[in-house]
Amino acid sequence: MSPTTTPRVTAIYDIQSHKGVAHAAAVLAGEQSTGTFVRLASETDALRERSAARIEAIEITGTSDKPALSSRDSGPVYERGLVTISWPIGNFGTSLPTLMATIAGNLFELAEMSAVRLVDLTLPAEFAHAHPGPKFGAPGTRAAMGGHDGPVIGTIIKPSVGLSPFETADLVRQLADAGIDFIKDDELQANGPDCPLSERVAQVMAVLNDHAERTGKRVLYACNITGEIDEMRRSLDLLEDHKAGCAMVCLKTIGLPALRVVRNHTTMPIHGHRAGWGLLSRSPDIGIDYTVMQKLWRLAGADHLHVNGLASKFSEPDVSVTRSARAVQAPVCVGDAPPMTAMPVFSSGQTVWQVGPTRTLLGNDDFIFCAGGGLLSHPDGVGAGVRAMRQAAEAARDGVSLSEKAADAPELSRAIAHFSPAKVDPAALLR
Amino acid sequence: MSPTTTPRVTAIYDIQSHKGVAHAAAVLAGEQSTGTFVRLASETDALRERSAARIEAIEITGTSDKPALSSRDSGPVYERGLVTISWPIGNFGTSLPTLMATIAGNLFELAEMSAVRLVDLTLPAEFAHAHPGPKFGAPGTRAAMGGHDGPVIGTIIKPSVGLSPFETADLVRQLADAGIDFIKDDELQANGPDCPLSERVAQVMAVLNDHAERTGKRVLYACNITGEIDEMRRSLDLLEDHKAGCAMVCLKTIGLPALRVVRNHTTMPIHGHRAGWGLLSRSPDIGIDYTVMQKLWRLAGADHLHVNGLASKFSEPDVSVTRSARAVQAPVCVGDAPPMTAMPVFSSGQTVWQVGPTRTLLGNDDFIFCAGGGLLSHPDGVGAGVRAMRQAAEAARDGVSLSEKAADAPELSRAIAHFSPAKVDPAALLR
Repeated sequence: MSPTTTPRVTAIYDIQSHKGVAHAAAVLAGEQSTGTFVRLASETDALRERSAARIEAIEITGTSDKPALSSRDSGPVYERGLVTISWPIGNFGTSLPTLMATIAGNLFELAEMSAVRLVDLTLPAEFAHAHPGPKFGAPGTRAAMGGHDGPVIGTIIKPSVGLSPFETADLVRQLADAGIDFIKDDELQANGPDCPLSERVAQVMAVLNDHAERTGKRVLYACNITGEIDEMRRSLDLLEDHKAGCAMVCLKTIGLPALRVVRNHTTMPIHGHRAGWGLLSRSPDIGIDYTVMQKLWRLAGADHLHVNGLASKFSEPDVSVTRSARAVQAPVCVGDAPPMTAMPVFSSGQTVWQVGPTRTLLGNDDFIFCAGGGLLSHPDGVGAGVRAMRQAAEAARDGVSLSEKAADAPELSRAIAHFSPAKVDPAALLR
Repeated sequence: MSPTTTPRVTAIYDIQSHKGVAHAAAVLAGEQSTGTFVRLASETDALRERSAARIEAIEITGTSDKPALSSRDSGPVYERGLVTISWPIGNFGTSLPTLMATIAGNLFELAEMSAVRLVDLTLPAEFAHAHPGPKFGAPGTRAAMGGHDGPVIGTIIKPSVGLSPFETADLVRQLADAGIDFIKDDELQANGPDCPLSERVAQVMAVLNDHAERTGKRVLYACNITGEIDEMRRSLDLLEDHKAGCAMVCLKTIGLPALRVVRNHTTMPIHGHRAGWGLLSRSPDIGIDYTVMQKLWRLAGADHLHVNGLASKFSEPDVSVTRSARAVQAPVCVGDAPPMTAMPVFSSGQTVWQVGPTRTLLGNDDFIFCAGGGLLSHPDGVGAGVRAMRQAAEAARDGVSLSEKAADAPELSRAIAHFSPAKVDPAALLR
């Protein structure tokens, strides 16, 4: 392919530099492609034309007399701005790990920059053609449940760690009897000696398979298989043997190649937990936006992706939650390629009050809504808690207010009296 | 094992909270073990005794009227301090991904904290017994070179990307003829369509095998095999077929389980590049110290670990480089276990001026010293550049100053006249 027609990957960075944004952009583009600290004779014009990163746009957003982050280098004025950089895919093909080393590698250490956040990524269709993407997504997840309407109402086994396999299964029995759709392990509970995965799966699935036989309803159990590569393959086989419906992994701690192995081996939806994500999200001056990283996790095969919840107990603002959740449902690449959408998973301090706003921000029911206290603390018990959540979802779907719906939905009525209204940022619901 | 004798993992965090450090420490310990936002009845005393994280120590270091990072929550005063938390390994066994989800998971998102950095980690001997660790380390690396004294003098193929396999091999030929010990791919160059790994390895190793036959010297080529799991296994086989001496991976972008697969499959030292590390290191308020993460990479099998260089072109201060490099050579676990030391790799803006200080900070020659311009720009050519580096290393070993040594070392003499002295922070060399 000629240099002008070769597909390119485009990323946007929010940077600050005492050398000026344009200069820092050139350093970044050089460091992450053909350049180094000094121009070498072997970096010919032809080589640059073929392989160099290109600065596509620069937008200055402000100046400061102080650096956002300290560096070896300094100056009297720090300029801030958004820079758009593109790379020809001839450099890295469609390799996700090498894409990451390119768009999110050494650049974070450059002394010329006192702030650098990767805030946007546009991938050409080649990536969607090269990678498997989610095997199930929302339709496959509903099918794995034996069919389902509305948002998937779920919960997390608590305490996160400390329960034996028997105690876990006993809790699962209560939750299944309460009518729940989805139960997941906590990210802390994988395959430790105090609650081995093999015993936990056997006991939990005995309960849920019995439940399915009695009631016709398949409750999805997302068992946390996070571990070594061969261990995860064995765990997937074991889950399949026990007719489990879902496998959970901690995306950040296993890495992209491991996720791809799980995707290729799995016969069930992959529930992607983002434990540790906060590290990349909390500083405005260093990090990666979730809208970027979720694309790579979807390409590698995640079916469900955690996005926190509206008015959650975590630090993330609601507008950021909205951006993440919508991104998960948007096409993964530009151009003619499968969209590879995933299901956003909402959790943390969620009650009936957040169901409606969550549906509003998405405009559909293709999401998983996990609550702990918001279900378990319903004054009439967890069964009433689940019914109240479904009633809140019906109200949202039908465009009816919670109080209107509550008139002939006693569980919802009790829930809105019991739980304090959630303070959702109205900006998070704007289109 | 009883709760009091079960081995524990201990981590130290530098945190800031408007609720006070002690309160935030309790929230952190709860979130990362048996607690949740509200105490559940099922979180019994016995369960807590067995599985809960424990606050081992709290040290207040200051207060501020402004938060370091913004959060949903706020208050008039933000207290800062170091908190030491420990976990029983019954929760996660020796699983590295689940250890990460525990010590570096959701805690970064807690609204109670306006700063949280993981600054220290102590692992019990069980981890070293459960994981393979480096297969080669410094002695194995020297053996792979057919024997070697002093620091390993290396360089990085530049331009990073854009050279064809033929051009890469041609550059390698010049470097081998110049007497270099070690040549590595750039982290951007893995297996892209413009320089496929299979062709690059074939051509580079033809040069280096011929060189070895002619001269008896085995130059190590660290080929960047970063990719998918099966692809990396195939690349390792290919490297072995071509008698290559080293395999490089981008540690952060492949993840711990993939590194473990590479370690189990490899017949050569694993060169661990930390592309993207800056993201975790640059903010004093969010992130993970390298002294923590390098332990996990060593357990999973990395033989060489990048630590930047003294007076480098990157933002990292010298004292941080020193801490990282010494950590890589310290025992990986406490108690009776193999130390699993790795070789620190220094690079970025390195010349003869940094060789001595680098040896001083370590107290030994078990390191890889990579230079680009510092070798290639020697006024008498790259051969003289390599000889000057070795002369600088001899001076350091013998406790002789560069200028004394230069008296009967003409290449070093030319180098110290040509390259500006490096401004190494003296604090980085203190014991």
